Amino acid sequence: MTTSDQPDYFTPSSSTALLTDKYELTMVQAALAAGTADRRCVFEVFTRRLPPGRRYGVLAGTGRVLEALEVFRFGDAELAWLERADVVDRRTLDWLAAYRFSGSIRGYAEGEIFFPGSPVLVVEGTFADAVILETLVLSILNYDSAVASAASRMTSAAGTRPCLEMGARRANEQAAVAAARAAVVAGFQGTSNLEAGQRYGLATIGTAAHSFTLLHDDEEQAFRAQVDALGPGTTLLVDTYDVTRGVERAVAIAGPGLGAVRLDSGDLGQQAVEVRAQLDALGATGTRITVTSDLDEFAIASLASAPVDSYGVGTSLVTGSGAPTCSMVYKVVARENGAGVMEPVAKASASKASVGGRKSAARVLDRAGRAEAELVVSGSDAAVDAWQPGDGQRGLLVDLVRDGVADAAYTGPEGVRRAAEHHARVRAELPATALRLSAGDPALPQRSLLLD
Amino acid sequence: MTTSDQPDYFTPSSSTALLTDKYELTMVQAALAAGTADRRCVFEVFTRRLPPGRRYGVLAGTGRVLEALEVFRFGDAELAWLERADVVDRRTLDWLAAYRFSGSIRGYAEGEIFFPGSPVLVVEGTFADAVILETLVLSILNYDSAVASAASRMTSAAGTRPCLEMGARRANEQAAVAAARAAVVAGFQGTSNLEAGQRYGLATIGTAAHSFTLLHDDEEQAFRAQVDALGPGTTLLVDTYDVTRGVERAVAIAGPGLGAVRLDSGDLGQQAVEVRAQLDALGATGTRITVTSDLDEFAIASLASAPVDSYGVGTSLVTGSGAPTCSMVYKVVARENGAGVMEPVAKASASKASVGGRKSAARVLDRAGRAEAELVVSGSDAAVDAWQPGDGQRGLLVDLVRDGVADAAYTGPEGVRRAAEHHARVRAELPATALRLSAGDPALPQRSLLLD
Repeated sequence: MTTSDQPDYFTPSSSTALLTDKYELTMVQAALAAGTADRRCVFEVFTRRLPPGRRYGVLAGTGRVLEALEVFRFGDAELAWLERADVVDRRTLDWLAAYRFSGSIRGYAEGEIFFPGSPVLVVEGTFADAVILETLVLSILNYDSAVASAASRMTSAAGTRPCLEMGARRANEQAAVAAARAAVVAGFQGTSNLEAGQRYGLATIGTAAHSFTLLHDDEEQAFRAQVDALGPGTTLLVDTYDVTRGVERAVAIAGPGLGAVRLDSGDLGQQAVEVRAQLDALGATGTRITVTSDLDEFAIASLASAPVDSYGVGTSLVTGSGAPTCSMVYKVVARENGAGVMEPVAKASASKASVGGRKSAARVLDRAGRAEAELVVSGSDAAVDAWQPGDGQRGLLVDLVRDGVADAAYTGPEGVRRAAEHHARVRAELPATALRLSAGDPALPQRSLLLD
Repeated sequence: MTTSDQPDYFTPSSSTALLTDKYELTMVQAALAAGTADRRCVFEVFTRRLPPGRRYGVLAGTGRVLEALEVFRFGDAELAWLERADVVDRRTLDWLAAYRFSGSIRGYAEGEIFFPGSPVLVVEGTFADAVILETLVLSILNYDSAVASAASRMTSAAGTRPCLEMGARRANEQAAVAAARAAVVAGFQGTSNLEAGQRYGLATIGTAAHSFTLLHDDEEQAFRAQVDALGPGTTLLVDTYDVTRGVERAVAIAGPGLGAVRLDSGDLGQQAVEVRAQLDALGATGTRITVTSDLDEFAIASLASAPVDSYGVGTSLVTGSGAPTCSMVYKVVARENGAGVMEPVAKASASKASVGGRKSAARVLDRAGRAEAELVVSGSDAAVDAWQPGDGQRGLLVDLVRDGVADAAYTGPEGVRRAAEHHARVRAELPATALRLSAGDPALPQRSLLLD
């Protein structure tokens, strides 16, 4: 039996509409029946906490949310399955068939720093229009921001040395594409991931693995094959057998113009010192050293004084360096009541209480332009809508979607480029303590302003 | 500016070929030029270690590897970008255009238990044919197995009570689909994820969130709306305001035939006891209690004596409960030399040494059918090929792909069903110590058999 006559189980759907928890749809069904589906609502994405010890988070994925929204459509295939699987009733199927998000979304610009309580995304529309986006919005922001938050610590620890993303093999195959993108938002300079390169116009990197050396009868044959094909500017992996002999062979074959050598095992700091001395002695003073073995922000920091020229980071990056997801939630904070009046709402019980009401936010800066607090404004819908940041306050919410139409400046390759620039700019505002890798409290205190 | 005239940045490609590290392709280019691309190779997927304290791993994703292979094609879009981005040369582009994997893949059946050194997948073909699959194979197996390994501990801790997957919002949106599938392989009974339900024929679950209660003017209105639309058999979320009053209202509105109540915050064990007593007193003796707040295998185990009927698990499941990726690697272990003879090969230096040579494996069982060791057989290509498990040994490698053709029995919904059955069967073979949640060594020792 072969799979040649099988359906294509693998390729993700061209619609994002089923990347959704079932209860979003059953809630729509119940609200349609109750006549409450059209009540105007404000949903807010925020996190109650940063991962233990982290001083700031980095928002990533906003551009992907807008891109996902464009293809959030219940087409014939989705509707046929929902009917067959008896997920919702006919009335709801008809509503889903016509669904286009027609509300508005504001949020922190992608690449922005966030803290507990920061209203990073504010979705406004009817209940049904907005609730149905919950799962997809959170999937995107929680993973992408987890990666970007880890990546920012790495690029900060690396200083001016480039960090390169190579974690695809340690993440789900599609998550890997998002991870590469999020890493670049937070300052990485390239990725090994070709799909990410294609989709978002990212620089791609990589030359050869140990298997290439092992394929050949000996290391010399392998290096010669690589240099012949990729030129002397290539990066040779020198630790398959013996590093010292590997470096010697590498320079002998490629000449002193060899682009770089890569170290992927052992004590990277000590080896880098030895390899640098050896390269210099061989006249290969311009040959760079790149290291790639199980790096995280702490390993990068510990290599600061070693003669390393770039860092390739995999596992710890794509798994958020100990925090593989943010704990962002998507909560209704205001809604129209039975009388048509907008009211703040919040869950009251136990451990998951939240602050009701629409929010806005600003970063409070001192005279030198240094961030000193996160101002979160809440209150009545109209008052918060009308609020504007004052002197020494940088407003944090930007318009992302108006009346269902996304601002293309935040999507695609251009969106990634802007987000990376934004991140570099706003990270530079933070106080120096924010960039310490050691465990600590959030770098900025939150100030609350309650409007009537 | 709107996105309406933008390319579709979001929808994953219908080809999996670019879900690949660049160096796989540059190695193909160099090997083609050197005349070594067609050397026959054996690549092996294995892990050097389990996550700290874990006693066994669960292989998942094998079916998805086969599905991904079917659409691993360099089409016009992929080739045009590779050329434009100058990733590889013309000769390599032509080779990629014609690429179809024509080799063979054997491996552990999906759902099988694995240990350090277990050869969970063995890919055989030319160097170029096989190396190019490295990234994609590892992406799939590393994430899916991380989830399944965590899931198995949860379903084991839950005993006969069902576990339900609801982690989509805490994982990348496509990873979430894979996570739902992997959870079901390891014994979960359903998922909130609609795409996973559609693609793999999984049972889907879910009714309503706190936002549905907050949408309405009060809890009574919300419960009435839900029961009217979804019937009294629905699950009502009773902790938005006050649990005791919520339960009272739930039964008053739905009647004693109410399907279930859900608790999503607070001290779940204590609340479950109180809610059970209250439900029973109200005559709702058949109403189930489901709990869903930040559960992991330890929380599930701690609720064993509480009157809980099912567990909804999110974050900890989709992030591998502390181990968000396996550390599986894809290593060449044997290859044809310049004289056309197959030879074992292995990286020699430093900390990442591996065992060369083709492998096979068997689980060694005692007379009662209890697993007592993992036998890993290695040696010359021919000898390992000819090796057969003996009495009291269950051979672990099955044919997955022969001459490029995948066995459809391992793919699609049928593949998931088989994998779940297989996992339940082989987990039951393990010694009781394997199922302890406390940190420990791998549950089975490895025995090595070296053939000439």
